[in-house]
Amino acid sequence: MNTFGRIFRISVFGESHGPMIGVAIDGCPAGIPLQTGDFHTDIERRSGGKPGTTPRKEEDIPEIISGWFNGFTTGSPLCIVFSNRNTQSSDYEEIRKTFRPGHSDFVAWKKFGGYNDYRGAGHFSGRLTIALIAAGVIGKKILNPVSIQAVLLSAGGNSDIEEAIGRALNEGDSIGGIVECKASNIPVGWGEPFFDSVESVISHLAFSVPAIKGIEFGSGFLAAKMYGSEHNDAIIDETGRTATNNAGGISGGLTNGNELVFRVAVKPASSISKKQSSYSIESGKIKEFSVKGRHDACIALRVPVILEAITAIALADFMLLEKYAG
Amino acid sequence: MNTFGRIFRISVFGESHGPMIGVAIDGCPAGIPLQTGDFHTDIERRSGGKPGTTPRKEEDIPEIISGWFNGFTTGSPLCIVFSNRNTQSSDYEEIRKTFRPGHSDFVAWKKFGGYNDYRGAGHFSGRLTIALIAAGVIGKKILNPVSIQAVLLSAGGNSDIEEAIGRALNEGDSIGGIVECKASNIPVGWGEPFFDSVESVISHLAFSVPAIKGIEFGSGFLAAKMYGSEHNDAIIDETGRTATNNAGGISGGLTNGNELVFRVAVKPASSISKKQSSYSIESGKIKEFSVKGRHDACIALRVPVILEAITAIALADFMLLEKYAG
Amino acid sequence: MNTFGRIFRISVFGESHGPMIGVAIDGCPAGIPLQTGDFHTDIERRSGGKPGTTPRKEEDIPEIISGWFNGFTTGSPLCIVFSNRNTQSSDYEEIRKTFRPGHSDFVAWKKFGGYNDYRGAGHFSGRLTIALIAAGVIGKKILNPVSIQAVLLSAGGNSDIEEAIGRALNEGDSIGGIVECKASNIPVGWGEPFFDSVESVISHLAFSVPAIKGIEFGSGFLAAKMYGSEHNDAIIDETGRTATNNAGGISGGLTNGNELVFRVAVKPASSISKKQSSYSIESGKIKEFSVKGRHDACIALRVPVILEAITAIALADFMLLEKYAG
Amino acid sequence: MNTFGRIFRISVFGESHGPMIGVAIDGCPAGIPLQTGDFHTDIERRSGGKPGTTPRKEEDIPEIISGWFNGFTTGSPLCIVFSNRNTQSSDYEEIRKTFRPGHSDFVAWKKFGGYNDYRGAGHFSGRLTIALIAAGVIGKKILNPVSIQAVLLSAGGNSDIEEAIGRALNEGDSIGGIVECKASNIPVGWGEPFFDSVESVISHLAFSVPAIKGIEFGSGFLAAKMYGSEHNDAIIDETGRTATNNAGGISGGLTNGNELVFRVAVKPASSISKKQSSYSIESGKIKEFSVKGRHDACIALRVPVILEAITAIALADFMLLEKYAG
Repeated sequence: MNTFGRIFRISVFGESHGPMIGVAIDGCPAGIPLQTGDFHTDIERRSGGKPGTTPRKEEDIPEIISGWFNGFTTGSPLCIVFSNRNTQSSDYEEIRKTFRPGHSDFVAWKKFGGYNDYRGAGHFSGRLTIALIAAGVIGKKILNPVSIQAVLLSAGGNSDIEEAIGRALNEGDSIGGIVECKASNIPVGWGEPFFDSVESVISHLAFSVPAIKGIEFGSGFLAAKMYGSEHNDAIIDETGRTATNNAGGISGGLTNGNELVFRVAVKPASSISKKQSSYSIESGKIKEFSVKGRHDACIALRVPVILEAITAIALADFMLLEKYAG
Repeated sequence: MNTFGRIFRISVFGESHGPMIGVAIDGCPAGIPLQTGDFHTDIERRSGGKPGTTPRKEEDIPEIISGWFNGFTTGSPLCIVFSNRNTQSSDYEEIRKTFRPGHSDFVAWKKFGGYNDYRGAGHFSGRLTIALIAAGVIGKKILNPVSIQAVLLSAGGNSDIEEAIGRALNEGDSIGGIVECKASNIPVGWGEPFFDSVESVISHLAFSVPAIKGIEFGSGFLAAKMYGSEHNDAIIDETGRTATNNAGGISGGLTNGNELVFRVAVKPASSISKKQSSYSIESGKIKEFSVKGRHDACIALRVPVILEAITAIALADFMLLEKYAG
Repeated sequence: MNTFGRIFRISVFGESHGPMIGVAIDGCPAGIPLQTGDFHTDIERRSGGKPGTTPRKEEDIPEIISGWFNGFTTGSPLCIVFSNRNTQSSDYEEIRKTFRPGHSDFVAWKKFGGYNDYRGAGHFSGRLTIALIAAGVIGKKILNPVSIQAVLLSAGGNSDIEEAIGRALNEGDSIGGIVECKASNIPVGWGEPFFDSVESVISHLAFSVPAIKGIEFGSGFLAAKMYGSEHNDAIIDETGRTATNNAGGISGGLTNGNELVFRVAVKPASSISKKQSSYSIESGKIKEFSVKGRHDACIALRVPVILEAITAIALADFMLLEKYAG
Repeated sequence: MNTFGRIFRISVFGESHGPMIGVAIDGCPAGIPLQTGDFHTDIERRSGGKPGTTPRKEEDIPEIISGWFNGFTTGSPLCIVFSNRNTQSSDYEEIRKTFRPGHSDFVAWKKFGGYNDYRGAGHFSGRLTIALIAAGVIGKKILNPVSIQAVLLSAGGNSDIEEAIGRALNEGDSIGGIVECKASNIPVGWGEPFFDSVESVISHLAFSVPAIKGIEFGSGFLAAKMYGSEHNDAIIDETGRTATNNAGGISGGLTNGNELVFRVAVKPASSISKKQSSYSIESGKIKEFSVKGRHDACIALRVPVILEAITAIALADFMLLEKYAG
């Protein structure tokens, strides 16, 4: 489904090499000051052009095509689109015959009976995350004074991230990483049980990002090794502040007033220059090949701003849902 | 929200110590043979009464109150309820004044302005997972011949699980664990991008289970340490079979025909007999106390059948959604 | 789909002759005082036992099985069920072979491959409206001080309603009617464009009631004959009060502060004692027959309280949605 | 909410005088042949430029910005946008101070705290129906061989429609009308009880069209005057064919295999050249004025193609939902 959220509700559309990628945001309150320049910083943080990201440098210019008037949101659906400019479709001819390992090529071809736009992975491209970034910018505005910050903790298991990426680049290979996201100033009680726990909604959004393969909140996987007496966070005052934060700011699926903390595992990009082999439907045989085109050595570099965006999207919806229950 | 799913759509309701817990399943196809005995095995697997689980032994008897006629589902909403019998509410009087660390007590009290049913954690109780079990039994029937199996891999970081649990029991403490779930015979192409990737939907459901704090698919967090050339699963034939399965059976958010594999981190139960301290709204001070009542030393013991259920719920919905796209 | 609403969200289940009919209400705010006696008046108004309604007199006793504690709603899903007691299934054996004209028998049999519960029309029975009544009682509590009142304006085109019904009863026939619903004290601006206009949501709910075949707001079908200069309601003060109310209290799909007014057309009940003919799958021929069992001569008599209920359900959701936009 | 539908799911956005109006369609099957020329006929039928419709003649050129590749739909969200070109915003300055009777001006201003785009009624403009037309064109393709046709039956209560419109034009006034829509070749059993009856879903969509104030299915309001013995449609063969069609092709909320028939009441356009009076927030007094700009004498002229579109959207969703139940 291309739609997510109950009140702050986003619909994304687009393909990597189609005319435009966009997002329509329903339920955005009226009267939020907004300029296209407001998207600039987060778009830049996501974009390529840095060591370890693809040299494909989009000039990602947001265009607000609805829901905006005289510098403010109007309360009707806010639609933001990005034209795709810098595309080299010929690079992708080969994937019609040989399905790239780790990619959506094969499954998309099967699911859509061969009608999918295979160029640059089409609708499955990481490029679609630009729509999340745009929605995240709006979410952050709504959430003020909640503050959200994500960082890349390690790449290839190495906290010297530059070194790890340099090594991958040299080999024509790619490398994964761990990204951590924290958010503070969140009131107690956001989240909507039974199904829409804070963990549920954030993880749902996180796993729409193509390269993410794991998520953990607070102590996460470490909690599986702990005793209850270690893991329990003692409440120390009437605001719900806790002495430790093994819960990552979430109790019973609801925000508990402490810092929200989660981490995701980003897999290495599937597209690599290094030789690999896969099945070719043309020959009916395993074939050696290397993926042409422009690749990310470490897509995890782009993930922090995306995690911030999905956190903002999730929390904005929870905030708007909470207003009525008070 | 108490509802989940698009076609196979479940609504849960109930509290730990209220009259009944139930689930209404919309979109269940007509003509599925069903008897109340069909729930027995999975209910037993979830229930307490084993070493490491609470001595509270519910006789969980499912009652089908709608959507069933002459031994078959009718195609109208299937509602299954469980009466709560074996409750000892007096054990829970203290939590009205002292919020148990690691529990929903404080956040529920805040969110619902003190009107929440606090007995046994009310709607936040792990007891609600009986509703997931019931829906999972139906999901498994629909999914035939897909087979799903989950096991507890370790407790407290120890693969000798009995030993780890025994140690926790001796201390009046609790312990976490890792549960792995696998599903096979899944066709290629289930999952609904952009937002409803297989990982998104399974994780959404998984994190509605109170004690789960992390999830990973395939290599998961290990992928963050890998090179692309290691992580990429080479396709070896026209069915999409891969030489390795680092992706855990999911490419581009869709099932790829290989075994679906994921693991969750289960935190140690918050309720422990061991002394701990927390803030008391009565005295306005930190207070020492131990949680009375019947506790699980290792709730992870109950999680395998629950993971199977949520996997069945997620896959049943994907299967029904896929039928139309073919 | 058995679910309706975005915040105040109801799920209904049950069949006419199954064990129970029920409704689970999600998004009901915590802290609303509630007793089972609160349902009594509206249940009585809907129930049979009056001249023109079926002699089948259910003792419809609501049972609150979740979401309620110590006299108040808890904020978790509120589930209310009604046991079916007074059923005479043998009356309905014949419809397995001869599909009653005007009934769901044939379409339900086709759609569900013969697995539908055909007794008393099963899930298609007007008896399901008891679930709407229960949800409406909660909706009315939330909406205070909005007041909602519906009346039967005419039966069989006759404003002397008793006479019209008497004539139908004498003939073993049934008769239709027009019901009008009005609601006052509604603030300006409820409704959620583009798709969720007030008319859209009320009509959606109204047409879930089996016998309703038409709906009109304000001047309705008469408006089709009017000039704009006649139909336009001149605004006369800063509260939006209008000199006339041809719009029925709705402008641009939103409440405009004036009285909400709409009318529905209720068809005559399909079950009649009078002889009629229909196709029999048993003989493959047209067959004469009369419907046995207990019938309503004028189901429109039961509709006023149902219209109030669906209006309350619709408005409660709009009210809760509006709170966040302010 | 700007989204409608469960499988064939549309999201609309845009304002009358903003940069673009558009619709994103999720759940559209892959492999449907599509060219921008396919929209031409229905767009023309809706557009102005005929006697009785506004002289504002948009050149409504659809642009497919996603979900389309090499002449076919891809299975990912199909987004179609229309640029707004022919706008004269200065005509609308006055409505900032004097709220036009019968329009959304006042309610939109209240609901969105003055931030709404008031030019040409903004998001409340009838111009938004171009998005429905575009989605309807896709719906009709999916539905083949179902055929849908709507006609204007009368204007101002007069079946000599040209005469009625001529009279309104002469007076600088507007006039309402009745539009009837019929659809044939629909299989038995489409529709999704309890809430998503065919009447519910069609009426929900119909009332999103600004000028529609009433709807009736089959005999509709006339049914309220009928006896059951007259209204019941006798089934005459094993396909469910009935001797009469008072039900309008819908039994128990499901299609019954006979022709689907419904009618809507279209109110006269609110914008008229004729003098009228309304409250001015500027002066705090009632003020005489006439609405400047370009007006429709009979918006009902545009409604047939819109009714076809919403019928196609509703039926396409039911068709796709039905595929899984078979």
